[in-house]
Amino acid sequence: MTPAPHDTPSAAAPAASREACARLDEADPLAFARGRFRLPEGLIYLDGNSLGPLPTAVPAALAAVAEQEWGQGLIGSWNAADWIGLPERVGARIAPLVGAGPNEVLAADSTSINLFKLLVAALELRPERRRIVSEAGNFPTDRYLVEGVCGLLGRGHRPHWVADGADEAAIEAALDADTALLVLTQVDYRSGRKLDLARLTAAAHAAGALVIWDLAHSAGAFAVDLNGSGADFAVGCGYKYLNGGPGAPAFLFVAERWQERVAVALPGWMGHARPFGLEAAYAPAPGLRRLLVGTPPVLGLAALDAALGAWEGVGPADLTAKAQALTDTFIHLVAERLGEAAGRLVSPADASRRGAQVCYAHPEAYPLMQALIEAGVVGDFRAPDILRFGFAPLFTRYVDLADAVDRWAAVLAAGSHRQERFQVRAAVT
Amino acid sequence: MTPAPHDTPSAAAPAASREACARLDEADPLAFARGRFRLPEGLIYLDGNSLGPLPTAVPAALAAVAEQEWGQGLIGSWNAADWIGLPERVGARIAPLVGAGPNEVLAADSTSINLFKLLVAALELRPERRRIVSEAGNFPTDRYLVEGVCGLLGRGHRPHWVADGADEAAIEAALDADTALLVLTQVDYRSGRKLDLARLTAAAHAAGALVIWDLAHSAGAFAVDLNGSGADFAVGCGYKYLNGGPGAPAFLFVAERWQERVAVALPGWMGHARPFGLEAAYAPAPGLRRLLVGTPPVLGLAALDAALGAWEGVGPADLTAKAQALTDTFIHLVAERLGEAAGRLVSPADASRRGAQVCYAHPEAYPLMQALIEAGVVGDFRAPDILRFGFAPLFTRYVDLADAVDRWAAVLAAGSHRQERFQVRAAVT
Repeated sequence: MTPAPHDTPSAAAPAASREACARLDEADPLAFARGRFRLPEGLIYLDGNSLGPLPTAVPAALAAVAEQEWGQGLIGSWNAADWIGLPERVGARIAPLVGAGPNEVLAADSTSINLFKLLVAALELRPERRRIVSEAGNFPTDRYLVEGVCGLLGRGHRPHWVADGADEAAIEAALDADTALLVLTQVDYRSGRKLDLARLTAAAHAAGALVIWDLAHSAGAFAVDLNGSGADFAVGCGYKYLNGGPGAPAFLFVAERWQERVAVALPGWMGHARPFGLEAAYAPAPGLRRLLVGTPPVLGLAALDAALGAWEGVGPADLTAKAQALTDTFIHLVAERLGEAAGRLVSPADASRRGAQVCYAHPEAYPLMQALIEAGVVGDFRAPDILRFGFAPLFTRYVDLADAVDRWAAVLAAGSHRQERFQVRAAVT
Repeated sequence: MTPAPHDTPSAAAPAASREACARLDEADPLAFARGRFRLPEGLIYLDGNSLGPLPTAVPAALAAVAEQEWGQGLIGSWNAADWIGLPERVGARIAPLVGAGPNEVLAADSTSINLFKLLVAALELRPERRRIVSEAGNFPTDRYLVEGVCGLLGRGHRPHWVADGADEAAIEAALDADTALLVLTQVDYRSGRKLDLARLTAAAHAAGALVIWDLAHSAGAFAVDLNGSGADFAVGCGYKYLNGGPGAPAFLFVAERWQERVAVALPGWMGHARPFGLEAAYAPAPGLRRLLVGTPPVLGLAALDAALGAWEGVGPADLTAKAQALTDTFIHLVAERLGEAAGRLVSPADASRRGAQVCYAHPEAYPLMQALIEAGVVGDFRAPDILRFGFAPLFTRYVDLADAVDRWAAVLAAGSHRQERFQVRAAVT
């Protein structure tokens, strides 16, 4: 697979020089948003797809929640500061980023736990069907939970794994009359390949199945249009492109038409119609709130809430265009400066087919990424051999790409990655 | 039920005057700990059993995590700041408060979700049995999850609800040869009644059953001895007596002997033996870590971690003695100053049979509590008619009790609670 950036429908033509990159920055309609983040001086952070950087608004928001709302307001802040409404309020701020209505997104728990809730809910809506179609290369937690739910329910559900890297046609071919559910991560965490959300949703519906989309690498990376695509369910991550902080609360989406019909897998008091009625019998809350379980994590939600302020004035079309232009530019610069020394491009060459990330397979990927990080270019390594670079459109500049490729070239020229200390993997990579 | 404080085995004799209370404060071996909290001037906070107050160490810890670890360290802090180890590290700090080994407690998710994990795990360990014994008056989320798991598994499990307020003998009588599991909250959230953890654990084991203890109103309220009692499983709350902040991560306990045998209901990537191996097949991590699901909530865990510093130098026996002396003193003061106007004492008269809270049933409980809060005495209302006062031993002074009862008497004398604005209930009460 060779990069062919000039054939892609990107908004901007790839830049081949730092000067050209600087001109793209000057013309960038999202340039204003970088000032909404605290980024360490001199560091080129191409890992916002793993952990978004600190939005400038967050420390003061956290201090206010801790010192005023908690410290002074104490228990009264559940009402006075509307802590109780945070899951819905934060959800409503995420909604426009994924093409959802304000009452269709809830911020709660982790992506994994939200996926569990929606797996059970969706299977209950297709009680006669037993097949769950997903992709062999789906993110591990999604795979484990699909398998886990099948085992836990003990009703003969079984996953069908479409081959890793399958395209839309191959996924469509796996849908049959017994398929209850299609479970897909829109953007592959290794290759950055983006699936056609509208097309696959329509195909699943045509087969009588429902779809759960994992938007971990989509929300905040480019415009997502859940309602425009007729989507049923989705989950997503608060700490990647949404910049909510490490382990931030995740989100879930349930289309309004399903909300009064979803079964509650984890009936907790916060999902009760009258949580403080403390009634013996469970009665699900109307709407999305029934998918809450325990007490909402206020500090995490407050940080995510403040972080979402960074999206003010950001147009969805600009976001998509910049994600495509950044990734095109990077691929072009890498091809020109590094050629085959960069490894094999595993991301789609067509910008409309990838998320806001670019990955290369390289036999020395682990030590290379360690050396790059030491040189101030932070991407990440994904087992077994992937160098992954994320290009969060909200704070990444085009000149960062030129500088990153310069530093990469310098690492290769010096052979820095061959040092022994880079050979042993850290616990978290 | 009439208060009989002088018949109880409390460490201190009840004080009947403010002066006597002041002497108890002077002799209090835990008096030093109050300085570890920021409490609003003049406020008497008797609601640490609902939301613990702000420990002084927390704001700086949160700022350091946000600004240095996240802001500067970015993704590298998963290793450099050992974010990845937080669930176990915070769990190990909670462990001595509940009589557990340092490798037996994990801080994660919410109490409700942890209960779900342990319900599934415990039922799998007793595959031939179908009965789950619990109490009709158990906290609602525990009830809902017991019912929910029975429905979700679809294997014929069924709850057996012992009558609300049953004593140990009545609970023991409900255990039969089909009982897989006993699920109890040690301290009743309304009455403060404390169950004998060791006796009921032994009774369940004698019947061939396992026990899950909900320690929401136990951990940090008095000494709990899980291992000394032979306990199997427990869950507990991070935001009540542990003061971790609103919606803080909860904890779970699994006795070491069960750790390699517990089934994983929610198999997420963080519970995998090699989370960053990103393997297609799930393989549970050794030990407790398999009960992690998604990415740990770092901000919430960091606040809880800092909050746990407030326990340094606190002896378990002092904690229990102070909880008993505080509650005895309050009951005594209320009986002397308010008599029947306080309502009916619903907490056990024997201090060894109650947690660190005292409750009165009163027909005007809701408006009365609102008027008390306005008078600077913060307890809480629990439906349908409970005035609840919590006495967290770490920061409550004996003089606070005398002052609280004074203010309560003044409210009653003025009839402040009869004002119309106190009649309508707020959303969260």
